Amino acid sequence: MKSRIFVTLKDGVLDPQGRAIHHAIEGLGFSGINDVRAGRLIELDHDESVTKADVEAMCRTLLANMVIENFEIEQS
Amino acid sequence: MKSRIFVTLKDGVLDPQGRAIHHAIEGLGFSGINDVRAGRLIELDHDESVTKADVEAMCRTLLANMVIENFEIEQS
Repeated sequence: MKSRIFVTLKDGVLDPQGRAIHHAIEGLGFSGINDVRAGRLIELDHDESVTKADVEAMCRTLLANMVIENFEIEQS
Repeated sequence: MKSRIFVTLKDGVLDPQGRAIHHAIEGLGFSGINDVRAGRLIELDHDESVTKADVEAMCRTLLANMVIENFEIEQS
């Protein structure tokens, strides 16, 4: 069983990595990009016994900084 | 319009960050995790004029290292 965790910065939190990517995209000649935000993707391969609540607990204690980040979990 | 880009390491490429996360998860007492892979998530907010092909071109030239990484694009 697989879980995908998307960790993103909360709105309003400065994102220097996203700004750098935005700048580089424009430098390559692409236009029409309004905003870029950078985040993390963590893929877990786990037993059926690991519930979504367990994965949420992992996010809250380890994988995301709840002060400045949000997370989403997608299980398949 | 938004595009989400998921950049992941190709199979067989060593992932020390994923291993460190796996180790830390087990250290916290969670069990049943078989594998952890770490990747990047990049969210673009762009005009309608930017096509999926444009975003693919950005990935190939800048956002992903095609030698060791794969990418997926999700548009909404």
